[in-house]
Amino acid sequence: MLAIGAYPTYTLFLAFGFSTIFTLLVMPLFIRFLKKDGIGQQIRADGPQSHLAKQGTPTMGGTIIILAVLVTCLLFARFNAALVLLLLVLLATGALGIVDDIESVSHGRSLGLTPCQKMIALTLISVVFCLAAINWVGISPVVNFPGGFGIDLGVLAINIPCGESTFSIPWLYVIFVFLLLAGLSNAVNLTDGLDGLSGGSVLVVMVFMAMVCFMYDELPLGIFAVAVGGACVGFLWYNIYPASIFMGDTGSLALGASFAALAVLTKTEITSLVMGGLFIVEALSVIVQVVSFKRTGKRIFLMAPIHHHFEKKGWSETKVVFRFWIISAAFAALGFALYFQLGW
Amino acid sequence: MLAIGAYPTYTLFLAFGFSTIFTLLVMPLFIRFLKKDGIGQQIRADGPQSHLAKQGTPTMGGTIIILAVLVTCLLFARFNAALVLLLLVLLATGALGIVDDIESVSHGRSLGLTPCQKMIALTLISVVFCLAAINWVGISPVVNFPGGFGIDLGVLAINIPCGESTFSIPWLYVIFVFLLLAGLSNAVNLTDGLDGLSGGSVLVVMVFMAMVCFMYDELPLGIFAVAVGGACVGFLWYNIYPASIFMGDTGSLALGASFAALAVLTKTEITSLVMGGLFIVEALSVIVQVVSFKRTGKRIFLMAPIHHHFEKKGWSETKVVFRFWIISAAFAALGFALYFQLGW
Repeated sequence: MLAIGAYPTYTLFLAFGFSTIFTLLVMPLFIRFLKKDGIGQQIRADGPQSHLAKQGTPTMGGTIIILAVLVTCLLFARFNAALVLLLLVLLATGALGIVDDIESVSHGRSLGLTPCQKMIALTLISVVFCLAAINWVGISPVVNFPGGFGIDLGVLAINIPCGESTFSIPWLYVIFVFLLLAGLSNAVNLTDGLDGLSGGSVLVVMVFMAMVCFMYDELPLGIFAVAVGGACVGFLWYNIYPASIFMGDTGSLALGASFAALAVLTKTEITSLVMGGLFIVEALSVIVQVVSFKRTGKRIFLMAPIHHHFEKKGWSETKVVFRFWIISAAFAALGFALYFQLGW
Repeated sequence: MLAIGAYPTYTLFLAFGFSTIFTLLVMPLFIRFLKKDGIGQQIRADGPQSHLAKQGTPTMGGTIIILAVLVTCLLFARFNAALVLLLLVLLATGALGIVDDIESVSHGRSLGLTPCQKMIALTLISVVFCLAAINWVGISPVVNFPGGFGIDLGVLAINIPCGESTFSIPWLYVIFVFLLLAGLSNAVNLTDGLDGLSGGSVLVVMVFMAMVCFMYDELPLGIFAVAVGGACVGFLWYNIYPASIFMGDTGSLALGASFAALAVLTKTEITSLVMGGLFIVEALSVIVQVVSFKRTGKRIFLMAPIHHHFEKKGWSETKVVFRFWIISAAFAALGFALYFQLGW
């Protein structure tokens, strides 16, 4: 009698709810486990003074987000090559984040892996992902712009005969995917500086991304997107100001990278730059600040990333977070509207 | 080329965005106007101590929410009898709220109208609304329960011949609608005790209510629902902790009453009690507290309504608000799921 699973939209709805409840239930156990072992976040010494109170808050909450996404996909999604690949990206970047978080916690510094080590790992992950997406899932190396206009980044591909088929290495597209994946995962990482900020921003982006997947007729990827959204809601229950746990690099790298991977697998690479506009703005604010300071000795923002700028201007942390959520939702809605109207 | 208005769901999406932006732009002008005139909220002396800092914050933000809903409906909705009636309920209860807020502000007390005066006004509004819904819009006086089971509250109706047709007064249903409308508007009013609490809770309920309207094939009512949702987002931009403005009775009475009216017009009276579960819990917490104290001298909650109970238990205001949003969303989703599965 109940029509569970009979309507794709309803399946998305249920998967979202399941992922939320799973995270809600498991996260407190994880917090208790971390507290027992005294594993807490080190707060960067050069951030706002008021943030030093956050010293010692448990981190690595992203672990439970990743677990919730895995379980939700196992229960609700019909697996295909694209979803398997996406989950592998989530796990690989999550593992990279865990290494970073654990290094950081055990060294008692807020640093973890060196930027160079992180970049090498992200390069490896994105190259393997891109080649698998091209040769296994069958993704085209053309980057689509509005109105049907596309740039073929597969033009100078290296094709290696491989049994009956050929293994294609469209290296221009590989570089593009690396920039997208490394860029977005670092951007989400930078956004993760206030209680609830990255979780809420990823949540709204994933809700719209699920609609994109649905329209692209990739229900399994849609289920992945709502699973991430639902896990973010459950995570925010504990992460909202004053936070009981942070997602850590485990969460921010994995969420940013899987957002980029979702964009590649639904051929919405350019749309995703609009949808994730908040993350791009956050990353750009750091770049602008550093470049300006190096070249002119002047700072553009009171503090970078830009969320700290508004804090310094007198907005309370909760106000910055909630307003940034709305801005993130506006970017996501704009990207979705462009996709819907112009079929990017 | 652009498909604006071609897809009903997309119209809902645009109306939501328009209402948000309208409220975002107009609210600061209203705040400046109120500040110039020194019109601020009086904080009840028996609330939590920490809330005395809210003394003097401008109120009546609901005025702009109502304005945004009106403008959005004018621009996006095809008017029908149901929508006109709904807007009249919004305006009438909004006017009642304004009177209450102005009395409260000018007397320098946090009281306004006496409960008796408020109740008489709500009775009048709900009776007129119910009779118009029955005789003008053609709503049936049957209250539907899950699985197609319904209770006909029109059994003892008084029918007055009126030209070629009859004017029906199904007084049992009239009483039911009064209880629903007065109950929900007072419940939302009670919920409106923490920065962002009522706005965010109404927002999530209205998003699901819009889906109900869409499935009930009443697009104009759906546009009303998303207009309220969008206006709540714009309002929350300024109302989030620490609030720059409150919605006041103007907002809470009008939002609660129009939620009840929406439920009547889509014949989801029982579903709405599930969807608005948070408001019901808030109202019940006050009733239980008062009854228990009168009968046994003991208090069940540390303070009522229940959101103050959690504050007293040590949750920060922002944590209570965000968690109550999630609970409200869960109730709304549950109500929608029941409607979707069982066709309440």
